Amino acid sequence: MMAKPESRSLDPRNTARLTISCPDQRGIVAAVSQFLNLHGANIIHSDQHSTDPQGGEFFMRMEFYLDGLDLARGPFEAAFAEQVARPFGMTWRVWYTAQPKRMGIMVSKYDHCFLDLLVRQRRGELDVQIPLVISNHDTLRGDAQMFGAAFAVVPVGKASKAEDEREQVRLFAEAGVDFVVLARYMQILSGEMLRGLGVPVINIHHSFLPAFIGANPYRAAFERGVKLVGATAHYVTEELDAGPIIEQDVARVTHRETPDTLMRLGRDVERQVLARAVKAHVEDRVLVSGNKTVVF
Amino acid sequence: MMAKPESRSLDPRNTARLTISCPDQRGIVAAVSQFLNLHGANIIHSDQHSTDPQGGEFFMRMEFYLDGLDLARGPFEAAFAEQVARPFGMTWRVWYTAQPKRMGIMVSKYDHCFLDLLVRQRRGELDVQIPLVISNHDTLRGDAQMFGAAFAVVPVGKASKAEDEREQVRLFAEAGVDFVVLARYMQILSGEMLRGLGVPVINIHHSFLPAFIGANPYRAAFERGVKLVGATAHYVTEELDAGPIIEQDVARVTHRETPDTLMRLGRDVERQVLARAVKAHVEDRVLVSGNKTVVF
Amino acid sequence: MMAKPESRSLDPRNTARLTISCPDQRGIVAAVSQFLNLHGANIIHSDQHSTDPQGGEFFMRMEFYLDGLDLARGPFEAAFAEQVARPFGMTWRVWYTAQPKRMGIMVSKYDHCFLDLLVRQRRGELDVQIPLVISNHDTLRGDAQMFGAAFAVVPVGKASKAEDEREQVRLFAEAGVDFVVLARYMQILSGEMLRGLGVPVINIHHSFLPAFIGANPYRAAFERGVKLVGATAHYVTEELDAGPIIEQDVARVTHRETPDTLMRLGRDVERQVLARAVKAHVEDRVLVSGNKTVVF
Amino acid sequence: MMAKPESRSLDPRNTARLTISCPDQRGIVAAVSQFLNLHGANIIHSDQHSTDPQGGEFFMRMEFYLDGLDLARGPFEAAFAEQVARPFGMTWRVWYTAQPKRMGIMVSKYDHCFLDLLVRQRRGELDVQIPLVISNHDTLRGDAQMFGAAFAVVPVGKASKAEDEREQVRLFAEAGVDFVVLARYMQILSGEMLRGLGVPVINIHHSFLPAFIGANPYRAAFERGVKLVGATAHYVTEELDAGPIIEQDVARVTHRETPDTLMRLGRDVERQVLARAVKAHVEDRVLVSGNKTVVF
Repeated sequence: MMAKPESRSLDPRNTARLTISCPDQRGIVAAVSQFLNLHGANIIHSDQHSTDPQGGEFFMRMEFYLDGLDLARGPFEAAFAEQVARPFGMTWRVWYTAQPKRMGIMVSKYDHCFLDLLVRQRRGELDVQIPLVISNHDTLRGDAQMFGAAFAVVPVGKASKAEDEREQVRLFAEAGVDFVVLARYMQILSGEMLRGLGVPVINIHHSFLPAFIGANPYRAAFERGVKLVGATAHYVTEELDAGPIIEQDVARVTHRETPDTLMRLGRDVERQVLARAVKAHVEDRVLVSGNKTVVF
Repeated sequence: MMAKPESRSLDPRNTARLTISCPDQRGIVAAVSQFLNLHGANIIHSDQHSTDPQGGEFFMRMEFYLDGLDLARGPFEAAFAEQVARPFGMTWRVWYTAQPKRMGIMVSKYDHCFLDLLVRQRRGELDVQIPLVISNHDTLRGDAQMFGAAFAVVPVGKASKAEDEREQVRLFAEAGVDFVVLARYMQILSGEMLRGLGVPVINIHHSFLPAFIGANPYRAAFERGVKLVGATAHYVTEELDAGPIIEQDVARVTHRETPDTLMRLGRDVERQVLARAVKAHVEDRVLVSGNKTVVF
Repeated sequence: MMAKPESRSLDPRNTARLTISCPDQRGIVAAVSQFLNLHGANIIHSDQHSTDPQGGEFFMRMEFYLDGLDLARGPFEAAFAEQVARPFGMTWRVWYTAQPKRMGIMVSKYDHCFLDLLVRQRRGELDVQIPLVISNHDTLRGDAQMFGAAFAVVPVGKASKAEDEREQVRLFAEAGVDFVVLARYMQILSGEMLRGLGVPVINIHHSFLPAFIGANPYRAAFERGVKLVGATAHYVTEELDAGPIIEQDVARVTHRETPDTLMRLGRDVERQVLARAVKAHVEDRVLVSGNKTVVF
Repeated sequence: MMAKPESRSLDPRNTARLTISCPDQRGIVAAVSQFLNLHGANIIHSDQHSTDPQGGEFFMRMEFYLDGLDLARGPFEAAFAEQVARPFGMTWRVWYTAQPKRMGIMVSKYDHCFLDLLVRQRRGELDVQIPLVISNHDTLRGDAQMFGAAFAVVPVGKASKAEDEREQVRLFAEAGVDFVVLARYMQILSGEMLRGLGVPVINIHHSFLPAFIGANPYRAAFERGVKLVGATAHYVTEELDAGPIIEQDVARVTHRETPDTLMRLGRDVERQVLARAVKAHVEDRVLVSGNKTVVF
């Protein structure tokens, strides 16, 4: 019977996540689950999504125990590539959870998103390492030190921006990062920098995009007299505030607010939205689909 | 003792609401409350707001029992105008709740906001009369009849729009309306029509304004990949979707939605947001402040 | 190539939903998806959940086109039972969406949940037929008629309750219902009646369960001074307000509320929560797991 | 004209808050606002609430600039007591915002509420001083030190509880605190201790009270299968989790949660709810009305 594989205890830290995207077609789930089953993978979670079963795009995320696997990582991935990924034309990736992602952070002077990430990392809510924090100001050095995070200041000047960005790219490359979070970093990253980093970059924008793109959204929200303020976490692309949205939320406000109180209320939304987006990214729950995201 | 005025039972239906706006200055609350007190008004609710105590605008709403009043309506209003409103430069109004507001409705083919208003009116949640519903289609005639509301069809043609609008204005004038609600009316009202109506017009827009102004916001929301869809109730001004916002809300959506499911989820937000805005308007809780609202 | 099955247009109304629960074990997803694939089923949606991959319970819901199927319904189900369901010890069911579920409704005097269900059914949001509405009062007969729903009054007396319930069961059996919704029906159903009905019964309770079980929850909420009022949709079991919860939500309230305004604000939450729960049930998204639910 | 008092700039830090409760009766607002006006107070905000204009309780909060006042604090308060408070039988208090409230904190091992309060205090969101943190464990000493807060450990034993509480009371008395916050302090305070402290004590309970009173609410929520988890901030009274509720909120959860993930999701609600409650208390927005609160 099938009870046997379950009879020994599986290590909940020794798991992997397989993410897949490909043109939708018949037999994908069968092929993937059969492959995993054959090689002894115990599936913990499985999520699928199709933008359209007829000619759309298919997305899948599977989380499974490695303990039961009959192949080492290399041969396992090679077999999957050959037997499953190639026939279906898949873009795919395996992430082994034993290895925490390395998260670079960029900040300016606001502490709320930054501290929230540091605390969650310390508490184990975010399974990441933080090899480097880069800021264009010295303001938050003390906070970084409190939580044991390396902190580098790279001032960004108008004239020297290209050079400053190259220095930032160099520092992140040296530190080794799997992704970068802009935790209220008040500079726009150029296309060159994004290409230089070569890893996903997550930004938190302090409005409910696409409302109030650009600078001073709380001032704009105040002037428009909205009854909710929002925040949006998105992957950064070259076009300002236009990348794939990962997470959004809002808070109710009233006629009593000033731009200052909007900012204060918004801060709580920002840090929450960013934390959810970063956690989803860290756990490989976010798959990009054109300029949108699938969040499992 | 002061217990005496309370010893007889006051009629909760026989109340009035006084709304005031004026430049903020010292002594307004004292003057208003002293005036009401002197004339025997028992205050039920009182709300104030100042955009800035130094040079800002002041807003006030007071609800009081009429039973205790020592003056009839006319002399009461005249005395208030003379003794309080004039010295402080107030814009003000008294609404007597014994007289329900007369609400005109404009609809096209969508039933969700329309039925919600009809049901709430029947149930007594909205203290209004509905003397006339005007539509550019015949679709919702049956629903209007189910709830006993007069229903007129005025088709709006591209060439005849000015004339059609004059007919609509004429019908509403004939019916006598205190305000008009666009319950998903799919035509833009011209400035001429707004001036012709001469009463506040409330619209429900099916997005979180200022995101997705104009036509097809659910399609636009789908294409942008937002994680929340919203609705906005606002007073109509000549500029499209730019009038003072009364109420907004959102609903969470996922990557699974299609434009159709966004529309379905959005309908529930639309009718709720519109109902709250209309109720606030009906109860004289909304004061306009430039292009914003104070909602008590 | 695999594009062929997609090349002809599949009928989006001709689909089926397969729901499964069984002890979790390796190979379930592979077996199910392989079976569907072999028989030409085009999968639209697939959801899985395991309470624990080691010794827990496994739940699955698959939605697929019938157009591609190489077997008729009977042989398809027989083959599935034999080849997949039996080896894994599955509790399972197939629902063919071409056949709308038949929803019985029980109401008393409150109209808000009742009208909401009727409107959603008419609009096509709820894919159900409503063969019969039973009430213990005549109050809502007119509303039932407006929407073309058969309406029977069965007054429930203290002494005659057992007999009255048998009559209700008889009427629903005669009408043929797949499930029953208590849309603010103000009587407690006995165990005998639940067994007599033999179909799932969904209730809307006007509080955030398990707070305020039993009668008068708005009064109790008022007296406790809560800052949110809630509603809970759940399957009915013999124990009062203790069945598996399908959906819950809340609305913010303030110190200004009276029991009456709490009730009014709560009504909007009740109808929304009930509608979501009924829709999820109708679409076979709710699987019961002990005294809890999995809602896909 | 009246523009003169506004012509000089008023110090926004030099304000006072007057809170009042008394039996509702005619003339209260007139008397209070007239008194403030006569003595040159510029009113910034004013809120009122009556549980019932006929025989209910009346609550008021006024915030005003001190700059314009024609009396010093002592004579001002004496005059108010004599001329206004006594005739109306008021319970009242003036708080001068120039003097931040002194907040004592009690914690055990959880850091989320504690750090949130420390960060908000540092950032100026909470206008308080933190003269002392008492814990029954040494765990959070480092965090207290990071933010410069004095930290005392008073272990609480079963046998020595009365004595331990007296030591805690002594330490808080020595430090001088205006109120105490239990930021997930895992001990129940005795009536003796509450009387000994003699100041308001705010607790955060990790459920939507009155659901899940007592220990392990996340475990209980998991077992009941709720679809929302909540948190409740309330004033502490002798009866466990039964004091006046200041603020509540919830977060949506699914069948996927474990007790651990419920706890994680709940943490974000707890810190937010506690922060809002503490801020409201600090700004004198919370008035107690029997076992309920009025939150302006």
